Amino acid sequence: MRGEIIAIGNELTSGRIPNTTSGFAAHHLFEAGFDIYAMHTIGDTPKLIGEALKRALGRVDFVIVTGGLGPTDDDLTTMAVSKALNRPTMPNLEILSLIRQHLDTNTGQPQDSLEKLAWLPEGAETLSPETRMAGFQLIHDGRPIFFLPGIPHQMRILLVEQVLPRLATWYEGKQLTSSQKVFKSFGKTENEINHAIKNLQLDERVEIGYYPVFPDVHLSMTIRGTSKSETARLARKSSILITDKLGDAIYGSDRDTMESVVGVLLKKNKQTLAVAESCTGGLISQLLTSVAGNSEYYLGSVTSYANSMKTTCLAVEDHLLNQYGAVSKEVALAMAHGIRVKSGADISISVTGIAGPGGGSDEKPVGTVFIALAEKNSTEAQQFLFSGNRYEIQRLTAQTALNSIRNYLTKPKQA
Amino acid sequence: MRGEIIAIGNELTSGRIPNTTSGFAAHHLFEAGFDIYAMHTIGDTPKLIGEALKRALGRVDFVIVTGGLGPTDDDLTTMAVSKALNRPTMPNLEILSLIRQHLDTNTGQPQDSLEKLAWLPEGAETLSPETRMAGFQLIHDGRPIFFLPGIPHQMRILLVEQVLPRLATWYEGKQLTSSQKVFKSFGKTENEINHAIKNLQLDERVEIGYYPVFPDVHLSMTIRGTSKSETARLARKSSILITDKLGDAIYGSDRDTMESVVGVLLKKNKQTLAVAESCTGGLISQLLTSVAGNSEYYLGSVTSYANSMKTTCLAVEDHLLNQYGAVSKEVALAMAHGIRVKSGADISISVTGIAGPGGGSDEKPVGTVFIALAEKNSTEAQQFLFSGNRYEIQRLTAQTALNSIRNYLTKPKQA
Repeated sequence: MRGEIIAIGNELTSGRIPNTTSGFAAHHLFEAGFDIYAMHTIGDTPKLIGEALKRALGRVDFVIVTGGLGPTDDDLTTMAVSKALNRPTMPNLEILSLIRQHLDTNTGQPQDSLEKLAWLPEGAETLSPETRMAGFQLIHDGRPIFFLPGIPHQMRILLVEQVLPRLATWYEGKQLTSSQKVFKSFGKTENEINHAIKNLQLDERVEIGYYPVFPDVHLSMTIRGTSKSETARLARKSSILITDKLGDAIYGSDRDTMESVVGVLLKKNKQTLAVAESCTGGLISQLLTSVAGNSEYYLGSVTSYANSMKTTCLAVEDHLLNQYGAVSKEVALAMAHGIRVKSGADISISVTGIAGPGGGSDEKPVGTVFIALAEKNSTEAQQFLFSGNRYEIQRLTAQTALNSIRNYLTKPKQA
Repeated sequence: MRGEIIAIGNELTSGRIPNTTSGFAAHHLFEAGFDIYAMHTIGDTPKLIGEALKRALGRVDFVIVTGGLGPTDDDLTTMAVSKALNRPTMPNLEILSLIRQHLDTNTGQPQDSLEKLAWLPEGAETLSPETRMAGFQLIHDGRPIFFLPGIPHQMRILLVEQVLPRLATWYEGKQLTSSQKVFKSFGKTENEINHAIKNLQLDERVEIGYYPVFPDVHLSMTIRGTSKSETARLARKSSILITDKLGDAIYGSDRDTMESVVGVLLKKNKQTLAVAESCTGGLISQLLTSVAGNSEYYLGSVTSYANSMKTTCLAVEDHLLNQYGAVSKEVALAMAHGIRVKSGADISISVTGIAGPGGGSDEKPVGTVFIALAEKNSTEAQQFLFSGNRYEIQRLTAQTALNSIRNYLTKPKQA
């Protein structure tokens, strides 16, 4: 079973906005066992939209169209489709009623200009009107076509929650079963991982891909088999071989993130965490709090950019700052200790470093970072030298700090 | 003058690797005055490669093909093109000699497997053989076709250094000059902005597009004229009309971000800033510190997830937390005051709210957020109700907080 993806928008063909939605769709469809025959990106040009859709319907089993569904004048997808497939538009009463219920927050009047959104091609079935996201499905010549908004986060939700289940039901039993698993590693290069896996003698139906997804390296394992049980058996066997080989370097798989893995470990160990940041500017805290339910184990952080914040909020003594400088092992240790005492957390982590582009010296070049971890009985610090631009140094620092917590929580405890 | 871009590779159609090269090419071609009619991404399938190329040649002035030029078995572009355009491959002696000169670093033998790279379709002209990057040009039916490697950094170099100058020479005087500007707005919907701009009576050569780029709405203005001076004049005139109409809602243009705009204003006003976060978990701090040079005006932040952090690091009194709850106007005011005093900053901002998915109540549903701003003489708080998922509520809160600082810094000061 194969499909095509058509992304629509002048912002894409002018290169102003990168097209991230087609790749997202391809990835998830591939994982679900579908192949993508071709992906097209075209402007808001009705003639071209119609041609691309009709050509796709002539050669594949389903089509996904994204973009051009909004209320503004340059959104032309629905009109183009109506014309190309000879399906006049008619008002969808459910959407119309939703639009009329939501009065303009400024004027208190109905928003007539949104009513365009309710006019859909004949036979259209809306995907998720209650969420107020545009998106509908058409069955044309026995093939499903899905129309999704071009706004990436809306498109992603509708693809995963609406399109994939509908396609799976529609083509049940017709596609090869496939299984894909992504192993996430941090701290080893793509080449080191490739080298380690090469000698594993995996089954020939197991396809391995390596891709750096900064700051991690991901290893993808794709298996296509004729039955679910065969695919599952091969997946289990190969997973064990891969994780045995790479050990600690793999921190999780699929939807895991370093911060979610740290969260799970903290919960399991019933321990709380606090963070003192400097060069990462709040990034570690932001990563930790992106995990829902983190308030169970995460107490908070201090981002002490200015030295005054280090003394008032973290109780770092002035003489340490004067003698060793803000970027030093001594200050990292004092920051970790300070935030642990102030917050009452079981464990704390601190980072201080030079993210650049300015601020480096011969002795402490840009990329110099100290990371300290404090717990009840000990405080330890390590020095690192990261390379990259400002963001890359911040991100590597954050991931290394989180990984230190992971290592601390997984290492065998002494009796 | 318009072209098409065809990207080839199974790693793209399976969604394993995002296609970043097509967008890069489109952006640079658009800036150089060319239009992109369509972009296609297809697998390493000779039949489809041939069809896509022939269709493009039938409707546009030039074609750019990327990927599938390497030495491995799955690189099929050259063979497919040779067949589709009826141009038998023949060895390019310059490339052949370069390959024979470079012996394998391990075996010291010539690398026979690379000789495939020297066989090009009849009439092919290599683009930059001395750099050892694959890439050639064909003129077919009077139209140039450029074949570039799929490796992003190689493709980028060849596009900028070889393709753009060759295209400019080939179509000299035939393309229009263009100018593009992006206005960034926050706080108004796409529809409200569309509505405001509609009545502006802009010149018909001025094309306006509206794009929600969460949490902002971007308005793009594209102008194509026959001369640079005409384009520039129209751009100036239309910019004034647009900014007059939208006023405060526009916070910047092109590469500006809300956090960079706030940074520029703080520097200009010689004022320092500190932040007290709760539900945003460090996001505001992270945005502010993503701007290089922020240490000039940004002192730091406290992310007080736990109430204990609010009392120890922000001096929020226990009775406020007990009486009003952590998510309240009173606590927001105390947090803003506390961080300003602790840090010694001129201005401070605080946020406290419920990002969800859990933690909401009838009285304070998920999305309830209080934002307070403190300066020497006053502290003010506002209540908001944001909708969306956890990340969206955090991002809207952060952008609204930054926008409050912007509004404070731009509003006319009383004497």
